[in-house]
Amino acid sequence: MQQSRQTFTSADEAEQAFYAAFNQCDANAMAQIWAADDVICIHPGSQVIVGYEAVLRSWRHILTNAELPEIKIVVLNRLISDMLVVHLVEERITTGDNYAAVLATNVYKKYPQGWLMVEHHGSLLARQAQAPTLQ
Amino acid sequence: MQQSRQTFTSADEAEQAFYAAFNQCDANAMAQIWAADDVICIHPGSQVIVGYEAVLRSWRHILTNAELPEIKIVVLNRLISDMLVVHLVEERITTGDNYAAVLATNVYKKYPQGWLMVEHHGSLLARQAQAPTLQ
Repeated sequence: MQQSRQTFTSADEAEQAFYAAFNQCDANAMAQIWAADDVICIHPGSQVIVGYEAVLRSWRHILTNAELPEIKIVVLNRLISDMLVVHLVEERITTGDNYAAVLATNVYKKYPQGWLMVEHHGSLLARQAQAPTLQ
Repeated sequence: MQQSRQTFTSADEAEQAFYAAFNQCDANAMAQIWAADDVICIHPGSQVIVGYEAVLRSWRHILTNAELPEIKIVVLNRLISDMLVVHLVEERITTGDNYAAVLATNVYKKYPQGWLMVEHHGSLLARQAQAPTLQ
């Protein structure tokens, strides 16, 4: 199962690692970011996926089958408490000629060993065949 | 602006009031549930709506134009800390012959006067023209 896990000292650090793993299609890195708990993941349009193993399986499937995407993120909102942090993130994902904008609510929880992701709720904001021209 | 506001002693109580307001298309009750802050609301497929006034305007629009819906909710997950609570809720919404299942991440924050909603992120799980036959 999980052996020596990476340690994240803040929700921001865990989030940075989450998007780096996504961006690099690195399923092993993705496995470090989630709590080994009843975590929740909703990919855009998907059912609710519950539990570490099922969530990781879904990410392995996405990351294995994906063309290497280019992901730009904008953190739109941060809700902060001692033990829970909630970020609202706009993900701008370009894969080849395809572009999708996704809104994600990411929830991080503080464990004795550091901050880990416990929920990712993504929903599609916009999709187009051609990536938009960004300034 | 807001005068005497209702007080919610827990996130569960605020959530109950939120769905009662939605169910009864009661925009005044809805106005009591949201924090007068930089709150965030995403309706299924909508842009991000930011701020108390804009969020309430969107709800007034929805609640005024809606046929009275029947809403059943199932709380799928609760993440709890002293100051922030995150619920994942499945909303089963029947309006006339139309049925929609929505997944909502609802975030509540503790203020001196009690718990209030600070984020609602809804995304469509399923939609059909005919309401399903429930046992």
